[in-house]
Amino acid sequence: MRIYDIILKKRNGYPNTKEELQALIEGYVKGDVPDYQVSAWLMAVYFNHMTAEERSDLTEVMLNSGEKIDLSHLKGVKVDKHSTGGVGDKVTLVLGPIIASLGLTFAKLSGRGLGHTGGTIDKLEAIPGFRTSLEKEEFFSIVNRVGMAVAGQTANVAPADKKLYALRDVTATVDEISLIASSIMSKKLAVGSDIIVLDVKTGSGAFMKTVEDARALAQAMLDIGKRHGRKISAVVSDMNQPLGTMVGNALEVKEAIETLKGNGPADLFELSRVIAERMVLLAGIADSAEAKSMVHEAVFSGKALKKFAEFVQAQGGDPKVIEEPESVLPKSRYEFEVRCPTEGYVKNIDAQEIGISAMILGAGREKKDDHIDPSVGIKVLKKIGDRVEKGEPIAVIYANDLDKYERAKERLLEAYEFSSIETLKPKLIYEVY
Amino acid sequence: MRIYDIILKKRNGYPNTKEELQALIEGYVKGDVPDYQVSAWLMAVYFNHMTAEERSDLTEVMLNSGEKIDLSHLKGVKVDKHSTGGVGDKVTLVLGPIIASLGLTFAKLSGRGLGHTGGTIDKLEAIPGFRTSLEKEEFFSIVNRVGMAVAGQTANVAPADKKLYALRDVTATVDEISLIASSIMSKKLAVGSDIIVLDVKTGSGAFMKTVEDARALAQAMLDIGKRHGRKISAVVSDMNQPLGTMVGNALEVKEAIETLKGNGPADLFELSRVIAERMVLLAGIADSAEAKSMVHEAVFSGKALKKFAEFVQAQGGDPKVIEEPESVLPKSRYEFEVRCPTEGYVKNIDAQEIGISAMILGAGREKKDDHIDPSVGIKVLKKIGDRVEKGEPIAVIYANDLDKYERAKERLLEAYEFSSIETLKPKLIYEVY
Repeated sequence: MRIYDIILKKRNGYPNTKEELQALIEGYVKGDVPDYQVSAWLMAVYFNHMTAEERSDLTEVMLNSGEKIDLSHLKGVKVDKHSTGGVGDKVTLVLGPIIASLGLTFAKLSGRGLGHTGGTIDKLEAIPGFRTSLEKEEFFSIVNRVGMAVAGQTANVAPADKKLYALRDVTATVDEISLIASSIMSKKLAVGSDIIVLDVKTGSGAFMKTVEDARALAQAMLDIGKRHGRKISAVVSDMNQPLGTMVGNALEVKEAIETLKGNGPADLFELSRVIAERMVLLAGIADSAEAKSMVHEAVFSGKALKKFAEFVQAQGGDPKVIEEPESVLPKSRYEFEVRCPTEGYVKNIDAQEIGISAMILGAGREKKDDHIDPSVGIKVLKKIGDRVEKGEPIAVIYANDLDKYERAKERLLEAYEFSSIETLKPKLIYEVY
Repeated sequence: MRIYDIILKKRNGYPNTKEELQALIEGYVKGDVPDYQVSAWLMAVYFNHMTAEERSDLTEVMLNSGEKIDLSHLKGVKVDKHSTGGVGDKVTLVLGPIIASLGLTFAKLSGRGLGHTGGTIDKLEAIPGFRTSLEKEEFFSIVNRVGMAVAGQTANVAPADKKLYALRDVTATVDEISLIASSIMSKKLAVGSDIIVLDVKTGSGAFMKTVEDARALAQAMLDIGKRHGRKISAVVSDMNQPLGTMVGNALEVKEAIETLKGNGPADLFELSRVIAERMVLLAGIADSAEAKSMVHEAVFSGKALKKFAEFVQAQGGDPKVIEEPESVLPKSRYEFEVRCPTEGYVKNIDAQEIGISAMILGAGREKKDDHIDPSVGIKVLKKIGDRVEKGEPIAVIYANDLDKYERAKERLLEAYEFSSIETLKPKLIYEVY
């Protein structure tokens, strides 16, 4: 099989076989296939796309390039969740305790945030004492005891994807649905969970700017998951503004706890609830109506909050964070209100810009090795469709450095767009598959 | 300027500026831009093509990467001709003497054949004593004395094209009109001729399989030439069967001499005549009607043949080749007629397969360093549209090796397609621009 012919076939609009994808990708990982041939192929994929079968094959080839995490010895139905990433997305912190309290098993391996804001691991590390670097045995033992655990991903999962992604990144071939779907799924399928629910974000703060693209990505990933024998579901949810109100690690932990107490922002609770229901349904432990009330009851009975406390304690975190988050979580030196420069309605918020503002404050990483400041961040007081008066606070900035505060404030104000005309609030959930 | 953005722009369908093409190509030649970025860009060009301005800019960047051959000190109007390559194409051998005999200057630098059959240089070297490796001074002195000379290209012309072509060759990005046109023109414009006439071949034995593609390539090259201030013209001519009857180096020299004597095949004479007329017209030494009779007269008065004799002698070849080609040119050991397996009409000839048959005999190179046998080749007796009887000879094979003869014969027979229905002869010239 000549690599040239594999490129030519894709260029001419024909699908590549699994054997061809294997020769190309495995050869690339081994160093037998030069990167200039792979990048030409990637650009041909950008233009001619892939069939569902090709995507599934590419995923499998990349999946098989690395380690797999076997969960079969864990008790119960193992559920996993993946978000394509957004600003203020603390769903995992709310969802995990809910579904663990319902008897499902949530063994979550999570990466650090590579976008503008911290990842789940970074958020949890804002809790004093919380350990996310767990040895396999401890991780599994906590899962079996508590029903949930969250640890940093240390296994060498899908190295082919890593190598391919690095090449895509410098050859303008990142944003193609098949390549994105295979990349995510090759990492997701490496963890042997029974059930996966995907949260595909769309909007100004998401990688998929349009609902149409987000739908296509969700469907591509669902198809790959099903072809690999997983029970899988997906939601397409809004990321035209931050989810909830808090952006920043300790702030988001606090907001997640409030949500588990039943006092959180409606959008965060709603999205967590819908994803939890999908998991309950896929697990087959309830029908649709029952699932809804089960999830509701888990929160309003305090069961989920209790599960969160167990989980925090099991991973070494200070359990007082549940009752007294304010006194336990790190606090920033400064807190400034950002006031509205005009009156009217919030027409738009560039969620990515809010994420960048939080990153400037220190809540996220610009470079891979940047240090995260858990205490800083932004509280978004006004969201799209809200009425605002001139001089009224639209956000609070939590900062430890006045210079960074000024830069963050400037970008935050630029992220807001106001209008004299009343604006509709965006839909939260566009699709549930 | 980030190379990434240059790729992204082309990928998204926007034209690259001259500065961008310079950064990309010059950076590539220097080794600053990695090949994997260039190949991604090439594939994006394959899909999104180039504007006329981009093609011209790319040509200029590649042209400026190497040496240029200054002809300004030569006497007269310097004319050059380029063929995109075909089987049995000995036009240069007929055309050169015609136009030199009309007072135009033909200083031709030619490559060796890289396709299935020999190049002009290989053909001329079939004449005993003929030297094509000329020092600059000798080459120029012969041109000034005789009006024509043909030598091997030794200057380091357009090295950027060489490097880019090698990358295209392994990444399935060769066959894109803009890239082909810039590649040819970057080498053509390196020679400082006043007039260029392009012969773009189309059909089974040509790189451009369809007339439509050949037209597009011709127009792209014409536009590049004009943007670089050259007087330029083009013909689109047929290569669905070999030009003339002879394929093979000594055989083609003999056929060219017969044509200069007025006894050659009609198609070879016709195409040479049309190209010569375009040159006369572009040189402004005659109007259209005069040009036609001038070219005719050059051949039928014997002036062109005399010029050919002068040219052969000046470059060290045996001038007896003109009067007694049979006794001077090398002859093959065997001559076998290939007989028609059926009766009817010749429906199709795969010209490329005829070329490969000749190559098998030794008339061309499979690999760059292969040795060429000047004496072998094929005489095509029956062409498309000709009536054939069963057992009638359709071709003669000139061979020095019986095993090669058998292989060549097999392919030659496969190249022929017969039909019981009368078939039209293909047009010789599709366009004159």
